[in-house]
This record gives sequence, C-alpha cells and structure tokens, in this order.
Amino acid sequence: MKRYRNGDIWDFENEMSVNGDGVEVILGLDGGTTSTVCICMPIMPFSHNLPDPLPVLARAVAGCSNHNSVGETAARQTLEEVMAEALSKSGSNRFAVKAVCLAVSGVNHPTDQERILNWLRDIFPTHVKLFVQNDAVAALASGTLGKLHGCVLIAGTGTISYGFTEDGREARAAGAGPILGDLGSGYGIAAQALTAVVKAHDGRGPLTMLTSSILSILELSSPDELIGWTYADPSWARIAALVPVVVSCAEAGDPVANKILLVSVQELAESVKAVVQRLGLSGEDGKNYFPLVMVGGVLEANKRWDIGKEVINCISKDYPGVRPIRPKVEPAMGAALLAWNFLMKEADEKFDS
Amino acid sequence: MKRYRNGDIWDFENEMSVNGDGVEVILGLDGGTTSTVCICMPIMPFSHNLPDPLPVLARAVAGCSNHNSVGETAARQTLEEVMAEALSKSGSNRFAVKAVCLAVSGVNHPTDQERILNWLRDIFPTHVKLFVQNDAVAALASGTLGKLHGCVLIAGTGTISYGFTEDGREARAAGAGPILGDLGSGYGIAAQALTAVVKAHDGRGPLTMLTSSILSILELSSPDELIGWTYADPSWARIAALVPVVVSCAEAGDPVANKILLVSVQELAESVKAVVQRLGLSGEDGKNYFPLVMVGGVLEANKRWDIGKEVINCISKDYPGVRPIRPKVEPAMGAALLAWNFLMKEADEKFDS
Repeated sequence: MKRYRNGDIWDFENEMSVNGDGVEVILGLDGGTTSTVCICMPIMPFSHNLPDPLPVLARAVAGCSNHNSVGETAARQTLEEVMAEALSKSGSNRFAVKAVCLAVSGVNHPTDQERILNWLRDIFPTHVKLFVQNDAVAALASGTLGKLHGCVLIAGTGTISYGFTEDGREARAAGAGPILGDLGSGYGIAAQALTAVVKAHDGRGPLTMLTSSILSILELSSPDELIGWTYADPSWARIAALVPVVVSCAEAGDPVANKILLVSVQELAESVKAVVQRLGLSGEDGKNYFPLVMVGGVLEANKRWDIGKEVINCISKDYPGVRPIRPKVEPAMGAALLAWNFLMKEADEKFDS
Repeated sequence: MKRYRNGDIWDFENEMSVNGDGVEVILGLDGGTTSTVCICMPIMPFSHNLPDPLPVLARAVAGCSNHNSVGETAARQTLEEVMAEALSKSGSNRFAVKAVCLAVSGVNHPTDQERILNWLRDIFPTHVKLFVQNDAVAALASGTLGKLHGCVLIAGTGTISYGFTEDGREARAAGAGPILGDLGSGYGIAAQALTAVVKAHDGRGPLTMLTSSILSILELSSPDELIGWTYADPSWARIAALVPVVVSCAEAGDPVANKILLVSVQELAESVKAVVQRLGLSGEDGKNYFPLVMVGGVLEANKRWDIGKEVINCISKDYPGVRPIRPKVEPAMGAALLAWNFLMKEADEKFDS
C-alpha cells in the first residue's frame, strides 16, 4: 500500500482518526473519455430490496482517464486523485474501503484489466476487493441496479454493446472506435454528415440542407474550409458535437440527413443483436425477456426523429422480448452497485458452504 | 530576399561565383505527406517538342512538408532546405532561378496558397515567378508533360481527383482525408478491412480470410488487440500499408476483401466522374477524348485484382473517351514542367502583343 507517494494525494488520511465512525464503504468509478466520476457509497445491508434513493457519502469528478487518450501516467494520476477526493469528502480513508469497482473506457483486453488491477493493489490494503471493467459494464449495472444480466447499448461520442448472461458469460460488439467502423456513434453520425457536405460540394453526392446548417454553426464560409476545420483538432467529442445539427436537418425533412440516421439506427441495432445472438439472451425461441440498458446522448429522446426509439423498434422485430431501460442513476453508481453485488454474492457463498 | 536567416541554409551561395555559367533554372517541388522532392531543371528552349530524357541538373529529397501533418514551421523549413540543396547540388543559386513551382499536399483553399506565396516571396528575388499548387496538379503535369488539361486520379495513402480544362477552369473531388469519406484511398481500403475483421469477430459480419492474414502480418494473436494497435499510432501511412494484404485476400477469392476493393473502385471512379462532369471534359456528347493521369500505389498493376484497370473500366462506361496515362516522370518533374509551361505561355503572350 502506498504512503506519501504521488505528492500529497493521501495526506488527508494522517489528519483524521482512522476509520473514525466505523462506516465501511465502496468506491464506484466511471472513467470515460470526457470525464471521470467517483462515488463513495456506504455498505448497505445485503438484500435484494434496495433503498430509494440509494445512499451516497460523497461524489468527486475529474477529467479524462482513458489511457488510450491521455496516456497511462496521466490516467492513473486522475483515477488516484478522484478516489482520494471522494474518500476525503466522505470523511473516510482507504482502511474503510471494502471494495472498489473501476469501470474505465479503453479496457478491451485481459491484459488491460491485469495492468490496472496490479496498480490498484499497490494503492489499497490487501483486504480490499478490486474489480476492473470496461465502462460499458458500469452503464449496464446502472440500469439493472448492479445485476450483470442483459445488454447495454451506449451511444455517445463512441458506441459499444455489452452483454452478460446470468451464468456469467459475456460478449461485446462494436466499441472499436471511429477508425474501426463505429458508424452508429455520435462521431460516426457527424463524420458521415461532414462527408455528405464534401460530396455535395464536389459533385459526388446530392445537395443537402446539412451544408448550410453545418457551415453556419461552425462559422465557415465554404465546404473547402471543412477540411482544415476537421484536421485542425480531430478530437472525437468535437466532431460528435455536430449530431444535433444532423437530427434537426432530418427532422426538417432532409433526405441525406435522414439516411445517415437510418444507417446509424441499423448499426446500433446490429451491435445489440450480435450480442443477444451470441449469448442466447432471448432464449431458444428468441422470445425471452431481457433488459436492454440504453445510455448516451445519441439515444436520448429527440423531438421527432428519436434514434433510441427506432433502434428498439429495429431490435424488437427480431427479439420481441427486449425490455428497454433508461437508467435513473449514473454509471459510477452502477459501478458501486456492481461491487456491492459481488460482495453480497461472496457472502451468500460463504453462508452456503 | 532572405540572407543568412535560418542558420546556414543559403550560406553556400557566398562560396560560389554568382550565376557562374549563366544557366537559368527552374525548381519543381512535390511535397507530400511522406516525402518532398525538389528537381532543378535548366530552362529548355520554348517548344512543344520536349527532349527525351528531360534534362535535370540536380534532385534533392527531404521528409514530410504537409503543414496539416507536421505544422507550418517544420513544413517551411523542409521546403527551404530541399530547395537550397537542389540549387547547391546543381552549382546554381537563387539569382539563377527563373521560376519555382511548389506543389504541396494540404493546399485546399486560396488562403493556403496565398500564405505559401508570401513566404516564397521572402526567399527569392523579385523577378522569380512563383506558383503554388496542390500536389495533385504536379501529378497531372507529370503525365501530360506540363500541360494543364484533363484529369488526374491519385490513390496512394490518400486519394484525390483533380481536373483542368484547356481554358483554365479547374475542379477537384475527394481528397478530404479519411475522416471525410475517402473510402477509395489506401487508408480507406485498409480501415474497411480492419473493420471487417472486428465485425467478423464480434458477430456483426461474415467470417473472412482477412482476419488470419492481418493478424499474422501484424503479429497479433486476437482481433481484440487490433483496437490497441490501431490507436497506438493512427498514422495514415501505417494503416494504408495493409492494402497488399487486402488485395491478396481478394485474389484468393475472399468475398469480404473482394467487396472492399469493389467499393474502392466505385469511390475512385465516382471522384473522377464528378470532375469530368463538372468540367465537361468529355464534350457535349460525352465521347470526347480526355487524358486521365493515374498515380499512386493503389492504382499500380496487381497480379489478378487490378484496381486501376477496374477504375478505368468503370469510368469508360460513362465516358468512353477516357485515355489513361501512367506517367513516366515523377511529380516533381511535373511541377518543373508546369513552371516552364507558364513561362512559355507568358513569352507567347508578350510576343503576340
């Protein structure tokens, strides 16, 4: 366990009575490409009936912790600081922690998981249970209140589908980023819209309302200037921010914008169906009930052109048992509930044996 | 005109007899994303019959000079150094230069052109004629030996179509880079292949030979590792280097690879047709002869699956007058010939008036 490393991150622990009030806590982290949230939750009695609202001792927010985006050192620093801040704010410390669930984007391979676990082991006392997951798993848990069953579809700047069976098998689809074909993501939608403007301008595609709408919002005077704008800073979130323009144009009846959204719906539905199919989530006859947690700006209700609703329509043609859930708590809480569920399961197993 | 700035770039001029042998020269530059080439050519007598081979006093090579890729300062430094090296090697200096044609990738807008012209004016004596073009224009001139008429299709790491009419109108299509839809480029082909591997792996797409071929050449053990590989260094050329794998798989009968190449052919042909259509290059009945200069690794003859040949087949269905040209000289020579042609035209006009 680290003491006094990384400057004064953990200094606050020396200035308090260790484990003063005896409250044991869980840390749930949601680390994304835009921001990182850490929730400090008191351990609730093990029960399948959860209190409403869920108890929270403290919440801390920091910047990006995707190691693919900001590099490993910066990502770790951010994660360590945001955990220290949440513990400090809740008047607690590392000895009071029973479990940590770290759900971060960019965890795509068991080696990513192992690397982060090793580093967490260096920070926390040995009795602390540690879990590392892709951030999609926390998003699923935020909809199912900690239970790993069903599928989650995230469509924000990026997109991914992730699913679990009750017996612990898991599968994912998409989530490989813009270069590797995530056309359904916010980035994918916006890049297709920018491409449509370029094609209309150079004669390869039909004229579209997207041209005037996008140029006006970016304060550019000609589609030629889009090239410079795009490559000046190809940050995914900056490009994805154009999604509302595409939705407005589709709502106003522009066929090019409409087609882009239809492609996006198709891609998003395909990624969910691939997961459902591989895991057999809908049972043998394809009609079993399964939860589909839906998260992210692209899926949020639009005025008339509702991407999320169209995605569900498309999935339910093949899988009528799909039950969409829009989570009421944030993914960091999902991560905390996940850790709490693991602890409860472990206690059950001990009791049974 | 600069003296003694930028360290010792132009120092060699002080150590020689100025304009010793009286040979007037032209500089032709081809500045790409991978390398920059400068040709120093003696002024040939004005005539429409060119000597074969074309005379070259010196040739110098340097790294990337695309300002979008390496930044403006580095791009300028590279261009200035490569010009100084070509002049120094040819025993000449800036006073002997009659004209410079700088053809660089990343020139997409009149403001790009003006910025570079201003900077060239600072380097050369006032009598020197200066021309700044997109590098596609030099590629066209390398096929037409300096005449700006017809269309050029470049398909290497990136792709662009560029055309000119005899009365000086010009048009381009594509060339907006990978984010803005250049599916026909080497990068576009390779990114589609990587996407196909990810989709086959997560159940969204059919199995393909591309999986084993790409994993083996990249020495990876699972498609999950492709995500890390891709974003570790998303340099366009590194991704485009996978094109030969896609061609091999298509030649071996893989339907997924085959479809990717067909999409690429379609996209490349569309970009040429858009230029031909806008400029009316094929005349009113659509049957007039026009040259199509074809440049870049993607268009070079493959064993059985010949992308370049398929692109021509596709174009000639609409425009039977298309006459493909594979240039025998390099684009830097095209740039030099372009400058020489401008000078000849100017001399003609003076003579006429």
